Order: sequence, then C-alpha cells, then structure tokens
Amino acid sequence: MNIENFKSILPKYKTIFFDAFGVLKNYNGLLPDIDKTFEYLKEQNQDFYILTNDASRSPKQLAESYHKLGLYAITEDKIISSGMITKEYIDLKVDGGIVAYLGTKNSAQYLEGNGTRLVPVSEIDDSNIGEVNALVLLDDEGFDWFKDLNKTVNLLRKRTIPAIVANTDNTYPVNQHDVAIAIGGVATMIESILGRRFIRFGKPDTTMFMFAYDLLKQKMTISKREILMVGDTLHTDILGGNKFGIDTALVLTGNTRIDDAETKIKSMGIVPTHICESAVIENN
Amino acid sequence: MNIENFKSILPKYKTIFFDAFGVLKNYNGLLPDIDKTFEYLKEQNQDFYILTNDASRSPKQLAESYHKLGLYAITEDKIISSGMITKEYIDLKVDGGIVAYLGTKNSAQYLEGNGTRLVPVSEIDDSNIGEVNALVLLDDEGFDWFKDLNKTVNLLRKRTIPAIVANTDNTYPVNQHDVAIAIGGVATMIESILGRRFIRFGKPDTTMFMFAYDLLKQKMTISKREILMVGDTLHTDILGGNKFGIDTALVLTGNTRIDDAETKIKSMGIVPTHICESAVIENN
Amino acid sequence: MNIENFKSILPKYKTIFFDAFGVLKNYNGLLPDIDKTFEYLKEQNQDFYILTNDASRSPKQLAESYHKLGLYAITEDKIISSGMITKEYIDLKVDGGIVAYLGTKNSAQYLEGNGTRLVPVSEIDDSNIGEVNALVLLDDEGFDWFKDLNKTVNLLRKRTIPAIVANTDNTYPVNQHDVAIAIGGVATMIESILGRRFIRFGKPDTTMFMFAYDLLKQKMTISKREILMVGDTLHTDILGGNKFGIDTALVLTGNTRIDDAETKIKSMGIVPTHICESAVIENN
Amino acid sequence: MNIENFKSILPKYKTIFFDAFGVLKNYNGLLPDIDKTFEYLKEQNQDFYILTNDASRSPKQLAESYHKLGLYAITEDKIISSGMITKEYIDLKVDGGIVAYLGTKNSAQYLEGNGTRLVPVSEIDDSNIGEVNALVLLDDEGFDWFKDLNKTVNLLRKRTIPAIVANTDNTYPVNQHDVAIAIGGVATMIESILGRRFIRFGKPDTTMFMFAYDLLKQKMTISKREILMVGDTLHTDILGGNKFGIDTALVLTGNTRIDDAETKIKSMGIVPTHICESAVIENN
Repeated sequence: MNIENFKSILPKYKTIFFDAFGVLKNYNGLLPDIDKTFEYLKEQNQDFYILTNDASRSPKQLAESYHKLGLYAITEDKIISSGMITKEYIDLKVDGGIVAYLGTKNSAQYLEGNGTRLVPVSEIDDSNIGEVNALVLLDDEGFDWFKDLNKTVNLLRKRTIPAIVANTDNTYPVNQHDVAIAIGGVATMIESILGRRFIRFGKPDTTMFMFAYDLLKQKMTISKREILMVGDTLHTDILGGNKFGIDTALVLTGNTRIDDAETKIKSMGIVPTHICESAVIENN
Repeated sequence: MNIENFKSILPKYKTIFFDAFGVLKNYNGLLPDIDKTFEYLKEQNQDFYILTNDASRSPKQLAESYHKLGLYAITEDKIISSGMITKEYIDLKVDGGIVAYLGTKNSAQYLEGNGTRLVPVSEIDDSNIGEVNALVLLDDEGFDWFKDLNKTVNLLRKRTIPAIVANTDNTYPVNQHDVAIAIGGVATMIESILGRRFIRFGKPDTTMFMFAYDLLKQKMTISKREILMVGDTLHTDILGGNKFGIDTALVLTGNTRIDDAETKIKSMGIVPTHICESAVIENN
Repeated sequence: MNIENFKSILPKYKTIFFDAFGVLKNYNGLLPDIDKTFEYLKEQNQDFYILTNDASRSPKQLAESYHKLGLYAITEDKIISSGMITKEYIDLKVDGGIVAYLGTKNSAQYLEGNGTRLVPVSEIDDSNIGEVNALVLLDDEGFDWFKDLNKTVNLLRKRTIPAIVANTDNTYPVNQHDVAIAIGGVATMIESILGRRFIRFGKPDTTMFMFAYDLLKQKMTISKREILMVGDTLHTDILGGNKFGIDTALVLTGNTRIDDAETKIKSMGIVPTHICESAVIENN
Repeated sequence: MNIENFKSILPKYKTIFFDAFGVLKNYNGLLPDIDKTFEYLKEQNQDFYILTNDASRSPKQLAESYHKLGLYAITEDKIISSGMITKEYIDLKVDGGIVAYLGTKNSAQYLEGNGTRLVPVSEIDDSNIGEVNALVLLDDEGFDWFKDLNKTVNLLRKRTIPAIVANTDNTYPVNQHDVAIAIGGVATMIESILGRRFIRFGKPDTTMFMFAYDLLKQKMTISKREILMVGDTLHTDILGGNKFGIDTALVLTGNTRIDDAETKIKSMGIVPTHICESAVIENN
C-alpha cells in the first residue's frame, strides 16, 4: 500500500471536495492544524467544497459550527449537504401538504418553504395523516424512538408516499470505543421491517457531486479530471467520487484505519486514486 | 383455492400443533368458540400442543393468560415456546456469567438458573461487560429504545458472544389498522446495522417442533404423518411444519387474509396441505 | 387510480425522456403507432431523449435497430444508454491495462479506446490477470455461464478492481409467459456470492438523467420542471426520475400492468406524477 | 486464542460428529493420518457420525469414496448427508408427480421412490410442467447453466412448488487458489432474482443433527452434553452445533485459517467450545 503525502498530490487539481467528519473533524473537534490546509489552498488559488452527509443542520449552521471551532475558511457557500439535496427534492417533487419528519425541530426548519409544512412524526394522527405527502429522516435525536419508530412504520403502511433519508451511514463514532446508531441506521431498520427501500441522497449517491460540479462550472472552466474527492470512508466518499468519475484520496483519520485499509479496499473492490495519512498540510 | 372445513381434516391425525396468535386469539382476545375446538379434541382423544414464538413470558404465565380468558384446556405442559428453547440453549451453551437481555424483567426471570445471571442491557457497563457471555432479545417492551439499542450495538461490537432472538416476526398487529415493531424486528434492525446474523429459535426453525415431537414419542407411538401443524402465517408456521415433514393447515384468522392467501402462497412457494377459514369447531 | 391521456399531459413539458423497452417496444417489436408520438412531438416542437439501461450495443447500433423497424425519428444523438455512462467511467477512471468483460464481442467493442483493452473473461488467465484493472458486465449472452461465471468469481477474489454493471434489471420478458435472466441478474448472483456490491450505472441511478440534462442545457434554457420521464418500471424509470427531481409518467405497456399498478405503487412507495395507458398518441 | 490438542479434548464425549470436507479431506484427498483418528476412537470405544452438506451422492457412494482412498472406518451407516434429509422431505411431503432437479443423474437417482419421478430441469416442458410438485438443487454439475438456470427461474414463476437446496455453501475450494460456485451459490443466485427463499437442509439447519441424535438414542443412553461437533466452517458446522446445544470444535484445516480464525469468530459472534489445529490424532 503506497501512502502519499497529501500536499504532493494536490498540484494536479483545480478544486478539492472534502468530506467533513473523519477528514476535517472528529468526535474531539477539529483535526489539529487542519486550518493550514485551507490557508495552503488559498495561497495556491485552489477552490474547494465540503460535501457532507449531514441533514441535521442548515449549511449556515454547519458553517457557524466551524467558525466556533476557529476555522473561518469554511463559509456557508462552500458547503454542499445532503440536507440541501433533500430540500431541493421537496421543493421540486412534494406538492404542498405535510412533510413528516424524524429529527430535531432545528433540522426540519431548514426544509420549510414552498407551501409544505414540516411536522414531526409524533404529531401525526388521524386528523392530519391524510395530508402527509412525504417522510424525511433527518437526525437520530429529537424524537422518542419507541413511540415514533412505531408510528413511522404505521405511517408508511397507510400512506403511499416517498420516504427520504439524507444520511447513508448506519453508525457514527462518538468516542474512541463507541458508536451511535445514525439516522441512516434507523432508516435501514425501517426498510428491513417494511421490505421497501428509501430514497437516499447522501454519498455514494452522486447527486451532491453533481450539485457542486454545476456550481463550479458557473465559476470556471473545469473538467472532472481536475477535481479530487478527499474522504475517510470507502463506501460513501470514495465510491461516490469514483462513480462520478473524479480522482479520489482516502485519508486515514476516520472510519478507515491504516491497519485495515488494504483489507477493506480489497474486500469491497473500492479503489481510491491516492491514500494519504491525513488531509492536514503542516507548516514547513 | 380449495377451502376445507377444519373438523373434516382432523380424523387423519393423532396430534395437532397449534400456533397461538392469529389462530386461538388475536388483539381482541380469544377467538369466539375456540374452546369448542379443544372440547372436540378431548372427545376424539386427540392430543395437542401450542407452539408459540413467544419469549416474553414463561409457559406457566402463558397458560394462566388463557385461563384468565376462560380457556382452561391449555395447561402449562401443553405449551412449547421459543422462550423454552432459549432457556435450554442457555443451560447447555452458556457457561456462567451474565446473559444480557432486552425485554421486561418478567421475561428474563424465567431464563435464570444454572449459574447465569440475567442482567438488562441498561445495567451493563464497563464494570461488568467483561462477564457478559450471551445476549437475548425477549420482548419489545421494558427498555429505553434509544439508550438501550445504542448500548446493544456497542455491546456486540465489544464482546464476542452469541446473540439470540426467540421471535422471528418483524411486526405484530395491535388492532385492525396498526402494527407494532416486534422484538424480532428490533433484532432485524441490529443485524442490518452490524452485518451479522442472530441465532433465531422461533418458527420456521424446527427446534420447537422437535421438542414437541420428543415429548409425544415419550407418551405414544406416533409418526410424523400423524401430526398436523395449524397456523396463520406462511413463513413461520407453515414453512416450519413443511420443513419438519408434517402436514400443515393454514387458517385465515390472522396474518393471512382470504383475499391474499393465494397470492402469498404463490409468491413465496410455501404450500400448506390444507386451507381452512378458522380453527374454530362450532357446535352442531 | 386516475389514468390520464398521454397527449393531454404533454403541453407542460419542453422535453420528454423515454425508456425504451416496455414503452416504445416489447418482445414483439415496436408498439403499433408509436411513430405517431414522435411525429406529434416534432409538430409541437418538443425535444426528447431515449434513456435506456442497455449496454449490449452502441447508441449507433441501437438507433439502427429502430430504423430497421421503421422508426426513423430516433437517431444516434437522441440515445443515452448505460453503456455510454460505462464508457465514460472507463475513460475517466481506468488507467490502461485490461478491462475484462462478460457479454458479446459486439457489446465490448464500443468500450474500446483510451489505452484500455477489452478482453472477455474466458481469455483471462495467469498470464494476463495481473493487468486486469476493471470488470464490466454487458450482456447475458456471448459467454459460457458455467466456465465464465466461475472464472469471474475467482477474478474478483484475486484482483482488487471495480466491477461495473450497466443494467439493473434481474430479468426481462422474452414472450408473454417467460422471462430471461438479464446481465443485471447475473451481477446480483455474483454480488450475493461474494458479499460485495457492484457499481451500477442504469436507472434508478441518476447519472444518465444528468447526462441528458447537460446535453439539453447546451441547447436551450430549461429547468427540471419542464422535463417528463416516461417509463414502464417503477423501481428504475419512475424512481430515477423522481430522484432527479423531474415529473414522471408510468405507462402500462410493459412491466407494470393495469391490474397491479396500484398495489405496486403502494407497496414500493414510488409514486409517478401521471399514469397513462401508453405513450402512443393516436391520430385523430 | 487458545489452541487445544484434539486428542486432549475427546475424553469428555461419548460421540463425535465430523464434518467431511475441510476436516477429513480436502481438494488433495484425505488428510494425511486421518485414519489414525478413527483407530483411536475405536480403541476408546467412542462412536462417531459424519454430517455432510453433500447431496450429490448417496451415503453408499460417499462411503465407497472413502474406501477408495483407503479409509475403511467410514461405512454407509455412519454418514448423515443433507441428501438423506432431502429424501425424507420428498417422501413425507411430495405427493407423487415429478420432482425437477438441477444436478447429475447420479445425484437424483438416490431420491427416487415413493411414487415420485426425478426429472432434470432440461426435460421439463409444456407437456409435463403441470406435474412438477417440487424442485431440488443437488449438484453444480450435470446441467447447462445458461439454459437450465433460465428454465428454473421460469419454472418457479409458473408453478407454486417448494424449492429445496441441500447445500448451504456458496463456494467450495478446488485448489489452493481457486473456488468453484457450489449448488448453494446457484440457489442464492435464483433466490436473489426471484425474491423468495428456498428450503435449506444443510448445516447450520439442525435437522441433520436431530437425525444423528435420534439414531444415537436408539443405540445408547446419551445426552447432548456428551456429543462434540468437529468442523472447519463457523457459519455451518459450528453455528449448527451451537444451535443444537452441543459442544463444538473448530479445526483449522479447511475454510478457517489460523490467521483469520479470531477475526471471523469475533465478527460473526459464532464461538466454538474448542479450537484445534486439526482432527488428526498422530501416533505416539
């Protein structure tokens, strides 16, 4: 396994796409010195986007969370989230009525607009179930798992509506030893109980890549060969980047550890263009 | 689809195996006149057993629940439950230590004995996780879904132990319109998140059939051709009976309705020997 | 279920995307009078594209197959096939060497170029297996199933390479009563044996939609609201169109029959914007 | 990982159940000195059975295959095969007519009797399809994969019949580097295409264990605590033995290698009672 220096692979690309969790930050906060990477990109005049499977907050709130940690380079306009794609889907495809959701109030607020009302699953009952035109799964917090998962199963048995989940991960790390079930895992649960598949907008689905690529093309002349996707997860970041036809770099600061990277790549058949220890570019 | 009268198919058999939910009772209580069926069997000198995918109560408690409803024919010794098979597994295969469980305190009590301690997942922590030698999923109530399902996922990541679920159904009906997620559905959730399979002792697994057959052979000379399995669910009762090599009768008082029986039989390729409207034998 | 007249729903759209099999043709050839539809679109100055999960032939050969049947409106430039997307993937992501394939020689020829050699799985052996950089599954004919599927399983166990399948259907109809296993079904087989997932470029993956949309935007000003996807299959055409954010019309001339449309829509939760008997516009 | 000497664990047991492939023999023939193990068992007056997921030959032919290799201790009456269980199923549950099969003529011959006719899938056509009452998958050889797998898919779409597969492995090793797709893998293929599950009689299903246990109880007084299952595969031999409630020993001469045993045990949660290098007992 050939491990390359992150800085050494950058010159070839005009724009870098970064995953967030496991690449820029982890359960401890920002990766030390990750701000240097964005300083370097600015110096080199290389553009970037953050592509994140996060639907629990708006891009504005996501940007603010970086600012609070001291990373000011990541502004709202640099963030492409699966929540944005979900919002676009609702705007284009849901024709009024109620969008029921699992998640926090905060995660739902961002999706409001265009004549639809976001109502938590807990507040769906016989009086309004007939108006529900879609279900979205946004966050693993903000609801009562026992009551609301049972309600969700019955809602989907009674109403013929699309169900959308904006996060494809089953779990996420909460410390060095433990994981938490992600909303993507909750979706997997309900899919396996009902025997149907949800619409999934997170990576490896390429819709987010497309969205970022369209933004880029409005700003500059660029080809897919000039874009690099940087991520820590083979079956989301790297598979998505590969499918979209761009180069990919696997970093070993998150879901994929140095001692199992080779085994995972082999068993999944998902091959990154580059492997780097981390996306941090240190001073020199 | 040829629907036969239940009474007319009985003469051929020495012993009848009954599923419980959907055959003898439903969410409203006992099926009206189901006691007549057991009177008739007694008159005809035909033996019976109840084979139930229920691990939430002991056979004694299950029998008492029938007595409370006015059905006295079903005594403790007539009940073979997946909880009994789980208990035998723990006695034979778990060598002391803790058996962690999801379910009510009541469901766990029955499994105690033989040097193992039954401890709810909520009480597993760093101080005792090293002693956990098995996990059993018993009931969908009695625990905090959010906290304890997350704990369960982490327990199974940290300890190399068997995980047993005694109920194979994903959901069960709670009224004419709604279902609840069964503990089997909770198991399906966790299996799909962890990518591993639990040990499942409920029908269609044939262990319960074997258990009842062994009891029968101690009492009489009997061959498999002289036993009938009666159930409402194709993929548990009927498939299990077919696999065990005995005749099967599908009744239409539970999970399989008269208008979708034929479609379900065809699409699953699970063919009952007989189809009857109900297991109730009315007076005449 | 509200069935609309196909002609009556068209005025709203600038461009129509059509699936091919089950919409324009079936195992008997072209749908009678389907040419009238394309005459009408021309009169109305509405553009169209054919989006097909077909990787067994080049767009040129696909167009010629319509011309032979007497439908001249479908020219090479109007066809977006999953084979095209596969070709783009190979051009962008496979850096020389061998691309092994299952399918006919004809299906592979179209993918040649850019320094890669297309070699049938039957000709992969110890002398060249080290050069194989990708596997593509193109057609269910043109190879020995017993020998070459066994070789394919071993190839994927030995080489860490992407495996691509350009067709997501498991089967396709060959007459009124019988189906044939499609190359997508062959892929499903190998995936289930190896426990890994292939890269799938056919609908419902949205890459083909994106490709057509990019072509359209080079020709005209158009928004997603002005495009209609017409297809006969819920889990490919309609799901793909819905995911891409455009309106969808289900036609009942192929995989979805009038008597099971409602049940399928309900059980899958995939809801078309319109339902029409057929895409044929008859003279009047 | 504590590796025990096979001889040292034997005194506790009255009877040993052995898996065949990977334990007694491999693709090179018998394991050197495996006959010493059976000499030792005879000296110690310990009984044994061979439990094999093999439905391609009759017990008689299986016994002869050992004799040809010079191992005479394994006689016909010592072999419990999934083919035997399949034969019992057909005798008890298939009421005349045709049992269609995939496999060699030889594998089918053993299942004849009781008024059913075994007919290869290749010979099923419109004239006799109405008489087909079951399908059995016996061997990966003896049929044309392309033609007969397509015919099998259509047979199962047209006839509401049980489909039985007597082997649960997806692949088997043919030399140090290559595997072949087993008939169990062929079944997995067809299941995934049709979306239905076959009846599977091979380990980890416990029917074979029950069958051997019944034979033992006719000869001696024995409890489950006095039986040991020896196998090389966690998800068949060890899981099956664990489910049946007997002790299990994993040997490292087949599917599980010494360097991945611990990882596999951990990730599957299938824990053998003992781990031994091999079932060979050497002279001393």
